[in-house]
Amino acid sequence: MARWEPDARGRLERAAMELYRERGYDQTTVAEIAARAGLTERTFFRHFADKREVLFWGAAGLQQLITDGIAGAPPHAAPLDAVAAALESTAPVFEQRRAFARQRQALIAAHPELQEREVMKLTLLAAAAAEALRARGVPEPAASLAAEAGIAVFKVAFEGWIRDEKGRGLPHHLRAALGELGAVLGRRPGSAAPTRAARPRRG
Amino acid sequence: MARWEPDARGRLERAAMELYRERGYDQTTVAEIAARAGLTERTFFRHFADKREVLFWGAAGLQQLITDGIAGAPPHAAPLDAVAAALESTAPVFEQRRAFARQRQALIAAHPELQEREVMKLTLLAAAAAEALRARGVPEPAASLAAEAGIAVFKVAFEGWIRDEKGRGLPHHLRAALGELGAVLGRRPGSAAPTRAARPRRG
Repeated sequence: MARWEPDARGRLERAAMELYRERGYDQTTVAEIAARAGLTERTFFRHFADKREVLFWGAAGLQQLITDGIAGAPPHAAPLDAVAAALESTAPVFEQRRAFARQRQALIAAHPELQEREVMKLTLLAAAAAEALRARGVPEPAASLAAEAGIAVFKVAFEGWIRDEKGRGLPHHLRAALGELGAVLGRRPGSAAPTRAARPRRG
Repeated sequence: MARWEPDARGRLERAAMELYRERGYDQTTVAEIAARAGLTERTFFRHFADKREVLFWGAAGLQQLITDGIAGAPPHAAPLDAVAAALESTAPVFEQRRAFARQRQALIAAHPELQEREVMKLTLLAAAAAEALRARGVPEPAASLAAEAGIAVFKVAFEGWIRDEKGRGLPHHLRAALGELGAVLGRRPGSAAPTRAARPRRG
């Protein structure tokens, strides 16, 4: 019978990140991760399919938080506000472990294999958010567009937060990115942007 | 010396799509694709790395069209308008072969391996569009947000176009999706959406 290993998942995750940073992701084996964590390979495989998945096990929980957040938004909330509120509700999860998030991001940026997995994770998040919006009665294509826009905001905000040297929280960056997206869309000729015709002539 | 094979790429692509539909993607081999096209395996590998890439060789050309479109937009164009114009400029490429695009989309939807590749393609397109916007002097995060929003619009418009039974063109769907994204962002409480406080009370 399998012995119960307290916090095996967390120990494996920390051991994996240490080794990925020390030796490189490609050079690290599952056997080494298990040994560093003081656990067996068998225990590793009870928790993760492979060494890549150690970096992605949070995806299911994140998706649940976001879809719950959308489902639980006030009935009158506009689609993008429901998504934005749901994204903000995930902040504490990340803020507890900003150093880890930063190391993980650097690792992903350096490995196409991890990048593909991360991109797929975000695509599945957007699909789940769109589904949660449709369940609230938001029609297509508004549901997909609000969900995709929300995930784009999340990506940009997350990168801003990772790099932020002033220590501003993820919610700050989420709101800034959302405002910026509104500005990108709002500042279109015909609305508020200066057009050739509207500009004063020189010369 | 290699014999010159007229339109080898196109013949391989058509043969591959026929076989993927007849036998299934997983069951089809490169040898079969080459044989169906009346070409050798060696010729196949001069054009494509593997049977998956037959479905993605257009990505580089598409990226070039989009980045050229952004670079060539009028100097005063707002970021998202530059992206929208660039996306519209790709329409003729797709409209020449809507039946192929529709078959390709169905195949991708049914195969996670192809979906990952497609998602990665769209992510790289967004990154290239953001880079082209930065080259126009658009700062971050506006460049990334406009690029990501543009690609979200493209995805939604493309699916609408594939499914459209009225035969409306891709530009129609691009404009509709862009308008819808504006509405999703515009209809936020505090701007135009009805809020609890603003709604007439019922007795």
